[in-house]
Amino acid sequence: MEASTAQAPAGTVLRVAAISGSLRRASANTGLIRAAAQICKESIPGMQVHHVDISELPLLNTDLEVDGGFPPAVEAFRAKVRDADCFLFASPEYNYSISGGPLKNALDWGSRPPNCWGDRAGAILSASGGSGGSRSQYHIRQVGVFLDIHFINKPEIFTKAHVAPNKFDDDGNLIDPETKEMLRKMLLSLQALALRLQGKPVNSAQGNGETMLPFIS
Amino acid sequence: MEASTAQAPAGTVLRVAAISGSLRRASANTGLIRAAAQICKESIPGMQVHHVDISELPLLNTDLEVDGGFPPAVEAFRAKVRDADCFLFASPEYNYSISGGPLKNALDWGSRPPNCWGDRAGAILSASGGSGGSRSQYHIRQVGVFLDIHFINKPEIFTKAHVAPNKFDDDGNLIDPETKEMLRKMLLSLQALALRLQGKPVNSAQGNGETMLPFIS
Amino acid sequence: MEASTAQAPAGTVLRVAAISGSLRRASANTGLIRAAAQICKESIPGMQVHHVDISELPLLNTDLEVDGGFPPAVEAFRAKVRDADCFLFASPEYNYSISGGPLKNALDWGSRPPNCWGDRAGAILSASGGSGGSRSQYHIRQVGVFLDIHFINKPEIFTKAHVAPNKFDDDGNLIDPETKEMLRKMLLSLQALALRLQGKPVNSAQGNGETMLPFIS
Amino acid sequence: MEASTAQAPAGTVLRVAAISGSLRRASANTGLIRAAAQICKESIPGMQVHHVDISELPLLNTDLEVDGGFPPAVEAFRAKVRDADCFLFASPEYNYSISGGPLKNALDWGSRPPNCWGDRAGAILSASGGSGGSRSQYHIRQVGVFLDIHFINKPEIFTKAHVAPNKFDDDGNLIDPETKEMLRKMLLSLQALALRLQGKPVNSAQGNGETMLPFIS
Repeated sequence: MEASTAQAPAGTVLRVAAISGSLRRASANTGLIRAAAQICKESIPGMQVHHVDISELPLLNTDLEVDGGFPPAVEAFRAKVRDADCFLFASPEYNYSISGGPLKNALDWGSRPPNCWGDRAGAILSASGGSGGSRSQYHIRQVGVFLDIHFINKPEIFTKAHVAPNKFDDDGNLIDPETKEMLRKMLLSLQALALRLQGKPVNSAQGNGETMLPFIS
Repeated sequence: MEASTAQAPAGTVLRVAAISGSLRRASANTGLIRAAAQICKESIPGMQVHHVDISELPLLNTDLEVDGGFPPAVEAFRAKVRDADCFLFASPEYNYSISGGPLKNALDWGSRPPNCWGDRAGAILSASGGSGGSRSQYHIRQVGVFLDIHFINKPEIFTKAHVAPNKFDDDGNLIDPETKEMLRKMLLSLQALALRLQGKPVNSAQGNGETMLPFIS
Repeated sequence: MEASTAQAPAGTVLRVAAISGSLRRASANTGLIRAAAQICKESIPGMQVHHVDISELPLLNTDLEVDGGFPPAVEAFRAKVRDADCFLFASPEYNYSISGGPLKNALDWGSRPPNCWGDRAGAILSASGGSGGSRSQYHIRQVGVFLDIHFINKPEIFTKAHVAPNKFDDDGNLIDPETKEMLRKMLLSLQALALRLQGKPVNSAQGNGETMLPFIS
Repeated sequence: MEASTAQAPAGTVLRVAAISGSLRRASANTGLIRAAAQICKESIPGMQVHHVDISELPLLNTDLEVDGGFPPAVEAFRAKVRDADCFLFASPEYNYSISGGPLKNALDWGSRPPNCWGDRAGAILSASGGSGGSRSQYHIRQVGVFLDIHFINKPEIFTKAHVAPNKFDDDGNLIDPETKEMLRKMLLSLQALALRLQGKPVNSAQGNGETMLPFIS
């Protein structure tokens, strides 16, 4: 079975900092991050997902930076971003754009000089109503140009939440096998790009995503 | 002199709800809003600018909505949005997009059902480094499609802050006459579109902005 | 029955210049324009749809402008744009953006000084695979800021083509009643905004679209 | 001197397919491509720029695809795209978006199945009026998500054309030393990303662009 999964070089464990753009207790987006952590544990050697909480960050205000230092909650957040090998963003679409209060606020705090995000791989997925978030992810990508994040192109995942049959249970846990499998492919694609950018060998199992279509479920 | 300014029909005073995307004490964007209020008072009859503070809004979290009600700070904010005739957004560009924590957060709270923004005119201006914010305003416009805000097309204003000779003093007050004049034209254009959308007569002085180029200062 | 449709003031007939972004003979987007023309004829007094062919325009090259004049095909196209009261764009989504060769090329030719598009209302609809074009329409809206087109916000129409049961016959004719009804609502919304911008009275039947959700079929 | 330039492994020559979005004879964008070719020849070993002409492509129309084949001009273009290791796009900004007729048309023809662009590095630069093209490049990046192009994030180049002192001579040749130096940095950044994606060693001279700011000249 392991033959079909990514094989990182011995000793290399990629740390994925995963951020949910929704603060709701039963958020489907936070559920996607829990599912990603579980998938890595079960079937993707060499990759670990760490959920980075962003609910305690203050609204961005650079007056809060004193003597080159940040408020404690911001410092702690920035350290987790700096220590990561790559990023996974799970974001609802609010009004055709990024979840502003939670996610964009966190992206902005992490970007204050010196930028904590630079030159690493990233992936985006969304659980949302309507078309599953297909308008908002490109705003995150535009932000990533300035932050210097290299996003995987494929697969893209747009999960329609709140549509029967529901892909999430009442606590926001992902229960849909098809979305889980696509999420596994996304994580393999993220692992492959992160390794390529770090100059490390990539197992051919990941493929390059070329034939993958956007996944709208 | 008044002949050269917009003349609203007697008794009609348009209320402009103005929101700054920056919470810094000496913010140039908040300075632009103070300048807009002053300009209306001095030379644009029939239009008043009200600065709506957004610094006390919590990060968006729909778990905070209880029994169909919002937290008091959110309720107060939504009432001010609902009561406005049109909107003026002064937003810095953070990482090529909207100021997320402050401004997008406020837009999102105002959009929770029932939407408070619908079917009214709006204008956007930005003071920012780099190219003055020319990448971020289009993200706000995309958000406005869902919120159902009708933005004026011209003039667009992108003010380069932090470049000598500085257009703002140390407290963020606008001191550049050329930017003030362009801001006056923007307010007239906003007034004209708001009146057209309300089915009220428009004084020809406003013009329709057709010949106005984007203003980058 | 007429009571439920828009009533333009006697003598006012709005000319809609309609452009399809696809040149295929059996294009679903061109089919949407034929359907719009038929709907206006049958049930929307005061509004006529004129299909403007763009297949003969050369690739944009300003060297083709000689002595302030345009090639004949371009001149003829520009005259039709100038004579219109408002615009309807039916555009497939190609690679997450505007149909470039046909539609963006036409938009660009029409924008050469003096701009032919300015200060009029517009609407966009798309028939496309994937999510029905929901990523591309916002690029057209960004172009519209410079062109000075005022787009209606609602309803938005994203028609999934090539999905069973097919909404179009083999010749690209729209045969789906639900999409026809939504298209009728879009045309009423376009008529209402065009009349408001022209300072003419609007029949209350159109509504303002506030409660309309994006329509993905 | 060579110590300060990129050193590709012996035998590896990266082929850059370079496309100009402007068809004017004296186009500054085409001038940027000539300058890039010259810079590679003089000071970047292991990288060659090939200008791919797109002026003879027909407007996209899939009816022109017969029995799985493309018109000869399209076939020839697609072969050049397929053979490239990476891409350089020099595009004017037309109406806040991609040059539609020439460039987007070419992107679309190259994307027809099987996609010719997939899984390679790319860079974008623009010479344009106004803010130098800073609104349009993000539309190209959104297109690149579907095409599966990995764009470098830094440096970004926005060249203000038609502003004194002119950076281009009357034939569109780049004569500004500062822009030439920034273009050289862009080519090194493109080379580095292309090599990383191909799993080949990268000389440290390229850096990763992290400290590079967008370049607006």
